[in-house]
Amino acid sequence: MHVPAALLSAQTAAILRAWGLDDDSVAATVEVMLYADLRGIESHGFSTMTLYDEYRRSNKLTLRPQVRVVRETPVTALVDGDGGLGHLPSQRAMQLALDKAAKCGVGVVSVRNSNHFGAAGAYAMMAPPRGLIGYVTSATWRPGIVPTFGAEAMLGTNPIAFAAPGRNGPPFCLDLATSTVAFNKVKMAAWHGKELRPGWAMDANGQPLTDAAAAVKSIRLTPLGGLPEMSSHKGYGLATMVEILSTTLSGSFFAATRSKDHPDAPRHNVGHFFLALDPKAFAEEGEFESGLDEMLAALRGTRRADENQPVLVAGDPEREQFEARSRDGIPLSDEMRRTLRGLSEAVGAPWLLG
Amino acid sequence: MHVPAALLSAQTAAILRAWGLDDDSVAATVEVMLYADLRGIESHGFSTMTLYDEYRRSNKLTLRPQVRVVRETPVTALVDGDGGLGHLPSQRAMQLALDKAAKCGVGVVSVRNSNHFGAAGAYAMMAPPRGLIGYVTSATWRPGIVPTFGAEAMLGTNPIAFAAPGRNGPPFCLDLATSTVAFNKVKMAAWHGKELRPGWAMDANGQPLTDAAAAVKSIRLTPLGGLPEMSSHKGYGLATMVEILSTTLSGSFFAATRSKDHPDAPRHNVGHFFLALDPKAFAEEGEFESGLDEMLAALRGTRRADENQPVLVAGDPEREQFEARSRDGIPLSDEMRRTLRGLSEAVGAPWLLG
Repeated sequence: MHVPAALLSAQTAAILRAWGLDDDSVAATVEVMLYADLRGIESHGFSTMTLYDEYRRSNKLTLRPQVRVVRETPVTALVDGDGGLGHLPSQRAMQLALDKAAKCGVGVVSVRNSNHFGAAGAYAMMAPPRGLIGYVTSATWRPGIVPTFGAEAMLGTNPIAFAAPGRNGPPFCLDLATSTVAFNKVKMAAWHGKELRPGWAMDANGQPLTDAAAAVKSIRLTPLGGLPEMSSHKGYGLATMVEILSTTLSGSFFAATRSKDHPDAPRHNVGHFFLALDPKAFAEEGEFESGLDEMLAALRGTRRADENQPVLVAGDPEREQFEARSRDGIPLSDEMRRTLRGLSEAVGAPWLLG
Repeated sequence: MHVPAALLSAQTAAILRAWGLDDDSVAATVEVMLYADLRGIESHGFSTMTLYDEYRRSNKLTLRPQVRVVRETPVTALVDGDGGLGHLPSQRAMQLALDKAAKCGVGVVSVRNSNHFGAAGAYAMMAPPRGLIGYVTSATWRPGIVPTFGAEAMLGTNPIAFAAPGRNGPPFCLDLATSTVAFNKVKMAAWHGKELRPGWAMDANGQPLTDAAAAVKSIRLTPLGGLPEMSSHKGYGLATMVEILSTTLSGSFFAATRSKDHPDAPRHNVGHFFLALDPKAFAEEGEFESGLDEMLAALRGTRRADENQPVLVAGDPEREQFEARSRDGIPLSDEMRRTLRGLSEAVGAPWLLG
């Protein structure tokens, strides 16, 4: 079953409104979830509604947050998300960073007291339409990555997203978790009864785990690199850098020590980091964009290892999905449909998907 | 043989002066090479003198460059390295970024028309003593990383360095190439007659290469992740991000297409990117530093997979080396000594190492 984006958005908005979210929060959350589902990033699309429902039911969520700018200079700001979902403060923060960059050449906005914000790329991709470069990192509410030589998850799957505008070609758009694979990939392997590659996940002794069902329970992902001899310390270092930029800079909670250090905190208090740059502060107008087009064309045109497997550039697979899904609608599995129906009935929201 | 840092610096300075480098270039180059050798990063220490000698003998180097600021705002700048070695313009650029961040909260400086600049961490680590955060990326003069599904090296080993200040503890210092392993690690394996792990390097058909000697000739490293099924597309994406920030933003040459696009260019024209942030723009004074200390302590103290193998934090191994080498001197192999002697004799520089 394929559902038009507008209809799926309306259904999700109806549920969020029935939860008691204010209009601004509903609009931002739906927009960012739609960004992901239209690009085939299903782990961060409307499927995250079940996670948000868990937050809500365990009173971890401010439903009508007062998002506010706490500190500000012409080129920096600190935004407080007031414990609501992460999408609204993150859209506002990126907007603010972009405004500052458009005026001054660079803008940096840190967000505290936030929560899961969906796909990091959604915010980075707000930059290219304005001729700007966007760089985004985020911590996560639950640790997922085990440090090299460690046995416990200590860092979030801490994403990095980076987007830059082209001239005639599409923007470059990188969006990656600093784990070797996303947790969703482990879940999908378990669902299909497949083994994991050694180096994707670990057991409670810090040893590689290939049993996908056990890995879903373990929640111990490796940092990018996977194994020490494949330089997992680099992925671990990048995940730590993201945690510092997102958590430490904003004064948010470090998830690995949250329950010990803040046992009574009513909210997760997740942090994010948003940076925007104006290429015109460094190059003549249009030069950056032409240079980007040329570089990406050279990468796509490089000699292939296998003639039938094209060399891609970050953002290419998502753009292809975007074109197909904008045209044909978003595929909705029976399971996902049942899940949305259940969420809808639980709060008496109207059911729009027939 | 262990040589005191000051003596090795004096020897190297003597050779660089005999080449005709001006005093500022000599001082910056020696300082950055010493940074690396004191921390055990031998691939970027005084061993790079042979590379710089190659540049010089092939007339790829401006010996007495006029480093200048081409564009500037209160928070951004573009620096032109005039085709000299990368150390001098990079020190000046990072200094400028730090000055701007200390005044305005953030500073971003792009460098064009530069060259090999040594260890990226040397510049990032200029930030913590001033209470600032440093982020540095660089392109390289020669492509070394093969895109996922490609068969040719198209991107530099494109490093990312990030340093942040602690309060009582040492700074966090990440410095990594976006390849799975440094080219030097492949060279060392060849030297010791060892096989490479599959996923470190590739042959001309884009297939994993385990013969180290062949890999030294191939110069085709994998992006971090190593193999497609271990998410090498993430390392490839990060290497591309670094190339965009360093090359495209500064208007430098993309090394993979340089010989085709700029066949008559006398210089490599490598680009770098320097960013500095003031934590005080976001948090109360001292909060960031305390938070960093606590996070790093939690990481170092996490449960180990192997009781005898401590969990480290980026910068720990280099700091241990720094203490030992500051005390005992820098180990100099017979081969390295012969190399320096040869470089010295070739230009009639005084020989100080006995």
